[in-house]
Amino acid sequence: MTDDLAVAWAYLARVVEPPCPALTELVAQVGPVEAADRVRRGQAGEDINRSAEARRQLDCAARDLEVLDRLGGRLITAHDDEWPLLAFTGFGGVPERLRSQAHAPMVLWAVGPAALDEIAYRAAALVGTRAATAYGEFVTADLATGLVEREVAVVSGGAYGIDGAAHRAALAAEGTTVAVLAGGVDVPYPAGHTALLRRIAESGLVISEYPPGTRPARHRFLTRNRLVAALAGATVVVEAGARSGAANTAAWARALGRPVCAVPGPVTSAASVGCHVLLRDGARIVTRADEVVECVGRIGELASEEQHPASPLDELSEAEKRVYDALPRRGARTPDEIAVASGLPARHVLGPLANLELQGLVTSRDGRWKLALR
Amino acid sequence: MTDDLAVAWAYLARVVEPPCPALTELVAQVGPVEAADRVRRGQAGEDINRSAEARRQLDCAARDLEVLDRLGGRLITAHDDEWPLLAFTGFGGVPERLRSQAHAPMVLWAVGPAALDEIAYRAAALVGTRAATAYGEFVTADLATGLVEREVAVVSGGAYGIDGAAHRAALAAEGTTVAVLAGGVDVPYPAGHTALLRRIAESGLVISEYPPGTRPARHRFLTRNRLVAALAGATVVVEAGARSGAANTAAWARALGRPVCAVPGPVTSAASVGCHVLLRDGARIVTRADEVVECVGRIGELASEEQHPASPLDELSEAEKRVYDALPRRGARTPDEIAVASGLPARHVLGPLANLELQGLVTSRDGRWKLALR
Repeated sequence: MTDDLAVAWAYLARVVEPPCPALTELVAQVGPVEAADRVRRGQAGEDINRSAEARRQLDCAARDLEVLDRLGGRLITAHDDEWPLLAFTGFGGVPERLRSQAHAPMVLWAVGPAALDEIAYRAAALVGTRAATAYGEFVTADLATGLVEREVAVVSGGAYGIDGAAHRAALAAEGTTVAVLAGGVDVPYPAGHTALLRRIAESGLVISEYPPGTRPARHRFLTRNRLVAALAGATVVVEAGARSGAANTAAWARALGRPVCAVPGPVTSAASVGCHVLLRDGARIVTRADEVVECVGRIGELASEEQHPASPLDELSEAEKRVYDALPRRGARTPDEIAVASGLPARHVLGPLANLELQGLVTSRDGRWKLALR
Repeated sequence: MTDDLAVAWAYLARVVEPPCPALTELVAQVGPVEAADRVRRGQAGEDINRSAEARRQLDCAARDLEVLDRLGGRLITAHDDEWPLLAFTGFGGVPERLRSQAHAPMVLWAVGPAALDEIAYRAAALVGTRAATAYGEFVTADLATGLVEREVAVVSGGAYGIDGAAHRAALAAEGTTVAVLAGGVDVPYPAGHTALLRRIAESGLVISEYPPGTRPARHRFLTRNRLVAALAGATVVVEAGARSGAANTAAWARALGRPVCAVPGPVTSAASVGCHVLLRDGARIVTRADEVVECVGRIGELASEEQHPASPLDELSEAEKRVYDALPRRGARTPDEIAVASGLPARHVLGPLANLELQGLVTSRDGRWKLALR
């Protein structure tokens, strides 16, 4: 990216509060340099002029780029190979209440060695309440580790609780994890996650729609959530209270046509109430990483069957089961007695008895039958 | 019921292993006395003759009726007003593997003052693993109590674990509960539930398809399960392992077109694995009694909205919640009684009680604690 181009993108990224589809459209038509020029001169059309009014004289582009450079970061735009185009194409049919935010981002500020398009190709979002329980954190870590083992990237929001547990476990398993922030990439939030976010940026990716220095604000969390959902093949809510931002991320996933998964928990736990509401509303229940991979993954990957302990009794015929059950725990019975106890005709008792004996389940002596010691 | 009639029914109830639709059909055509006579003479048609072969010379009818009489019980048949006809009409379209058992019972042996048709009009089955956890037993008790408060009868199988917790809580709340046994009504099973079954028979109902003296056997549990599902408007599996009889009861409920509900639990709990499998396969998630009532109840009853924010109970610690929940709606309890009810060690009860008192949620007098009026 040339300096001019970078400055133009950086200017455009700050001059409006994202997302601003009109500006994205203008850039697509005339390119970023010309678009920046028009916005600066107040000649970008009524909508954009109004959206940019408060900030169009503010020119921090060079400074923003310096900050990004100092962090070793880069801008990612729709003009880059790294742009995960497919991730952002599902915003067409979202419900009314999400409509104003339902647009692809124009510019992403990114720090970290991972390639965004590669991540988005195969990723799951693990999200949930900041007030996670030990159970929630454990399950999150378990899922994140399993996802990494299956080469699925872990996307989350960098917050305390479930988000943090997801990032930490993915890092511990040496997998790829992405934190999507609601403020600038140079504004670690929450402050207690400064070191965690730094570690994510060292091996994965920290990204944001917002220019350096931007403080997270309530509406930005909601706008940010759409990117978490959009970058992931499926969104998993691990724990969420009755009112939780995770439900918003789930709503974005659903609006984008991506699977929404929820982890069940004790009905006595306030931190699982939101998950149970999601499950009631049609979210998929997931209890282990395999089931998440099944939602995320490319075609052909199905969760392995839960392993059932097998009992030799399972394979018995109906008559054999009835004969088997008719034998007392201790002591032996004649076939006639077995017929009475089982309700089977006497002549239909000997065949099953012989089969049961072959399978080592019963033994006979002097015309009397008993259960084999097992 | 005349003596002749009763003897005929009792004979027919034992002469074949239920269910035997051919015999039920014969009785419907010629009446029980004539049907019994034909069976005894080996002139009841090939199918019935074969099914009755082992036991047709066995005449314990008078003795069986004496046993029933001594227990203060009665026979209930399709000829009685008390027969819950609608409960047993759904066996038409069940899947192949259940087909051989998919028939209405012919005779039920019953002990208890409750009327079976009234129970079946508005009942829920609460079932689950014998290896229940404290969590499962707590949730079962909570659901059973809530169902009783909404005048829903609690049907279960009398087993250890979830079944027992369901019966006990329904009794404690002075509601109606029904135990459907897989053996004779005079054979308390499990033996450890002898007293519990006696209490159920005092206020609710203990019923069985099997004549007195019959020992429960594996295939009888499966056959019994269809009656549990059939007598209930909805079946709720509270806890179930990967292999659990509760899944069989749920399969019956589904086959009968009744809602199958499952309670979620920790994904780390083996006792909830079966519930999560059911949820994955389309069972309805339930977390409180209201949601069960919604499935069971007559049209027009919908669960009240989840109460979101402002209960002082939301802020309680886990132990405080358990202690609080262990107090009855009316009346007071000693700390020892609360320990038992909550499942907490007695020494861990006083601290939470003191905190609850500080918060004005409970009051104490003379060493007994009760809920504060709110």
